[in-house]
Amino acid sequence: MRRAIELAARGLGSTSPNPVVGCVVLDAAGRTVGEGWHQRAGGPHAEVHALTAAGPAARGGTAVVTLEPCAHTGRTGPCAQALIAAGVARVVYAVADPNPQAAGGAAVLAAAGVEVAAGPLAAEAAEVNAAWLTAVRHGRPHVHWKYAATLDGRIAAADGTSRWITSPESRADVHRLRAESDAVLVGSGTARADDPHLAVRGVPGARQPLRVVLDTEASAVKPGARVLDGAAATLVAVADDAPAAHLLGHAEVVRLPRATHGPGLDLTALLAALHRRGIRSLLLEGGPTLAGAFAAAGLVDRVTGYLAPALLGAGPQALTGAGITTIADALRLRVTGVDRIGPDLRVSAVPVNAPVPKES
Amino acid sequence: MRRAIELAARGLGSTSPNPVVGCVVLDAAGRTVGEGWHQRAGGPHAEVHALTAAGPAARGGTAVVTLEPCAHTGRTGPCAQALIAAGVARVVYAVADPNPQAAGGAAVLAAAGVEVAAGPLAAEAAEVNAAWLTAVRHGRPHVHWKYAATLDGRIAAADGTSRWITSPESRADVHRLRAESDAVLVGSGTARADDPHLAVRGVPGARQPLRVVLDTEASAVKPGARVLDGAAATLVAVADDAPAAHLLGHAEVVRLPRATHGPGLDLTALLAALHRRGIRSLLLEGGPTLAGAFAAAGLVDRVTGYLAPALLGAGPQALTGAGITTIADALRLRVTGVDRIGPDLRVSAVPVNAPVPKES
Ligand SMILES: NC(=O)c1ccc[n+]([C@@H]2O[C@H](COP(=O)([O-])OP(=O)(O)OC[C@H]3O[C@@H](n4cnc5c(N)ncnc54)[C@H](OP(=O)(O)O)[C@@H]3O)[C@@H](O)[C@H]2O)c1
Ligand SMILES: NC(=O)c1ccc[n+]([C@@H]2O[C@H](COP(=O)([O-])OP(=O)(O)OC[C@H]3O[C@@H](n4cnc5c(N)ncnc54)[C@H](OP(=O)(O)O)[C@@H]3O)[C@@H](O)[C@H]2O)c1
Repeated sequence: MRRAIELAARGLGSTSPNPVVGCVVLDAAGRTVGEGWHQRAGGPHAEVHALTAAGPAARGGTAVVTLEPCAHTGRTGPCAQALIAAGVARVVYAVADPNPQAAGGAAVLAAAGVEVAAGPLAAEAAEVNAAWLTAVRHGRPHVHWKYAATLDGRIAAADGTSRWITSPESRADVHRLRAESDAVLVGSGTARADDPHLAVRGVPGARQPLRVVLDTEASAVKPGARVLDGAAATLVAVADDAPAAHLLGHAEVVRLPRATHGPGLDLTALLAALHRRGIRSLLLEGGPTLAGAFAAAGLVDRVTGYLAPALLGAGPQALTGAGITTIADALRLRVTGVDRIGPDLRVSAVPVNAPVPKES
Repeated sequence: MRRAIELAARGLGSTSPNPVVGCVVLDAAGRTVGEGWHQRAGGPHAEVHALTAAGPAARGGTAVVTLEPCAHTGRTGPCAQALIAAGVARVVYAVADPNPQAAGGAAVLAAAGVEVAAGPLAAEAAEVNAAWLTAVRHGRPHVHWKYAATLDGRIAAADGTSRWITSPESRADVHRLRAESDAVLVGSGTARADDPHLAVRGVPGARQPLRVVLDTEASAVKPGARVLDGAAATLVAVADDAPAAHLLGHAEVVRLPRATHGPGLDLTALLAALHRRGIRSLLLEGGPTLAGAFAAAGLVDRVTGYLAPALLGAGPQALTGAGITTIADALRLRVTGVDRIGPDLRVSAVPVNAPVPKES
C-alpha cells in the first residue's frame, strides 16, 4: 500500500476533478506484476493501468489500491468490473469512496466472489487525497494556506521590504506546492504590493495552476501586471458592480457578491465558482488579510509555514484579522511535519478540529 | 571526546564562574579507567576527579578533556601538574583555554614530555561551554533569549490572555533551561502583567538561578509579588533615583544608570553588575520590549523559540522595537536544532554573525 500511495502522489496537480489513485497488482504468488496511477482526468484509472501492465499474471492475484475501486461508468469504464474481468482474487483498498456516484465498488466486487479488505494505511492514503476528499465532502476546493515569515512571525520589514525573507530552496518548494494545486490565490493587497507572477517555474512537467486574484474594485490588477502574462490562465474576481473593462482580453473576470460581513468578496461564492470550474485544490498565498478572512470563516484545511531563521521585531504579521480575540479561541493546529528547507524551517499543520478524512 | 562532553554537560548551572569540563582517562591499552566532571566552583576540576578514579591505571595512558587543562593555581592546584604527576603519556583536548590566567596548560604538558593534541569535536565542546566562553571573551554573561509564541508569532491574544500558549511539556523544558542558567531576567512589563515566579520547579537537584527584574522606576515589583518569595534569591534593578524602600528586606536592589538611548536601564551596566556577581549565563525570558532592547544592542547570543501549533491573527508579538526597519538589516540566525516538545516545536538558533567560539 505504501508503494500504491507513492504512485498516487505522482498524479497530484493533474487529475482534478478526479482523485489521485495508485494501484499495485500482485500475482497469485505475491510478486508485483503491475503498477499504475491515475495520470489525468479523462485518462484511464490507476487499476486499468496496473492491470494492463500485469496482463494474464493478474489472474488469481491481488490488487492493492489507495481508493475503493469505482462502480460507475464515467468517461472510462468502472474499475470494479475491470478487476473482475481480469480474474483478480483479492482487492485491498485504503480509503472508501465518499462519492455517492462512484461508491459501491467494494459491494460489486464482493458480489462477484472477490475477497475485499479495507483500511490499511487509510490515514496516509487520505492525506494524499486530502484535496479531493475535502471537495467531495464539502463541495468546495481544499484550501492550503502557505506563508513565509521570520521566526517572530513577520512577513516584511517595517518599510515594507520583504525580498527575500526565505531562501531560494524555500521559494523552489513553493513552486512545487503550486504545481500540485489546481489554483493559486492572492488578495488585491498582495497584487498591488508585489505584482506577483504566481505561475510555476522550475518544476519539470508541471501543469500550470489557474492564477486567481481577489480584486473587489477591479483596481489592483492592471494591464501589464505579471499575473496577466501568458504563462498560465488567470481569473480576476471582482464585485458585481466593479468597472472591469480594462481586464477584457487580459484575464477571465468572474463577478461575485460582496461579503455580507466585513470587506471584500464573498469567499463561499468564490469557492463555489472555483469548484464549478473543476478546481479541487487551492493554494492560498496570502496576504495576511485574505488569510485572516479564510481563517475566520473556518476555510483553511492545511497550513504550510516557511520560517526563516531571522528576527525583525517590526513589520506586518503573517496573519491578521482572523476574528480571534482571546487565547481560548486560538485556531489550534496539529503539526504533521517539520523539515529543514535550506536554512529555513517548513512547518506543515492541519486544524485540529478540521473534518479528518475518515474511512466509512 | 563525545563522552567527555556529555560529562561536562552535567555541570551546567552549577560551575559558574568556572567553565563546565569533562574528562575521560584511558589506560595504556585504551580502556576507560576514569571519568570526571567539574561539579561546582571551588570543587576539584574534572581531570582530578578522573585521575582519582583511574588511580595507577592512568600511568602511560591518555586523558581526553573538553577544555585545555589549566596551568594556574586557583582554589585548586593546576591540572596540567596533576596530569604530569599521574604519569599520563598523552592529553587530547577540544577547546583551548581563552582565559589568560589559566592558559598555557598545553605548553606546560608538552615541556614535561607529554604528547598533546588539540581540536577534536571543538565545536561541540565549545557549545557546551558557550556561556563561559562568551563571558571570558566579552566580559559579560552569555544571553539566551527564550520565548513562547504561536506559529504566527503572537505571545498573547488581543485581550492579553496568554495562559497557556504552549504545552506543559514546553513549560517543563523552560524549567530545565532555567536550571542550566545562573540567572533569569524579565522586564517590568512582564512582572506587572504576569507576576511570574521565575524559580525552577520539577528539576531534581537543580540549583536555583538568581531571579532578576528590570524595574526602572521600582514600581512593578511590590511586596507580595511571587518573584519575592523564598524559592530563590532575587535582584531588582532600578534607576539611580528610584524610590525603592519598599523592596528592602524583600530582594536585593541594584541601582543602575538609565539607558543613554531609549527608555529603561543601561543594559551594559546591568550585564557588568551581573558578571561581577559571578553570573556567566543569563536566560532572558522577555517580554518583547526587553528582548527587542537586547537584540538592538547586539546582546543576544542564543535564541530558543517554543512555537505552539496555533494561530491568533492578533495580539502582541514575540519581539518589538529591535530597531530594525528594513529587510537587509534583519537579525539573521542559524538554526542549530528543531525538536518536537509535546505538540509544540522548539527552535534553537544562534545569531549568524555572533563571535563563534574558535579554538586558537
Ligand atoms: N510572506 C508571505 O507569505 C506573503 C504572501 C503574500 C503577501 N505577502 C505580503 O502581504 C502584503 C499584502 O497583504 P494584505 O493583507 O494587504 O493583502 P492581501 O491579503 O493579499 O489582500 C487583501 C485584500 O484583498 C481584498 N479582498 C477581497 N475579498 C476579500 C475577503 N473576503 N477578505 C479579505 N480580503 C479580501 C481586499 O481588498 P479589496 O476588497 O479592496 O480588493 C483586501 O484588502 C504585502 O506586503 C505582501 O508582500 C506576504
Ligand atoms: N510568551 C513569552 O515568551 C513571554 C515572555 C515574557 C513576557 N510575555 C508577555 O509580554 C508582555 C509584557 O511585555 P512588555 O514588552 O510590556 O514587557 P517587558 O519586556 O517584560 O518589560 C519592558 C519594560 O522593561 C523596562 N526596562 C527596563 N530597562 C529596559 C531596557 N533597557 N530596555 C527595555 N525595557 C527596559 C521598561 O519599563 P520601565 O523602564 O518602566 O521599568 C520596559 O517598558 C506580557 O503580556 C507577558 O505576558 C510573554
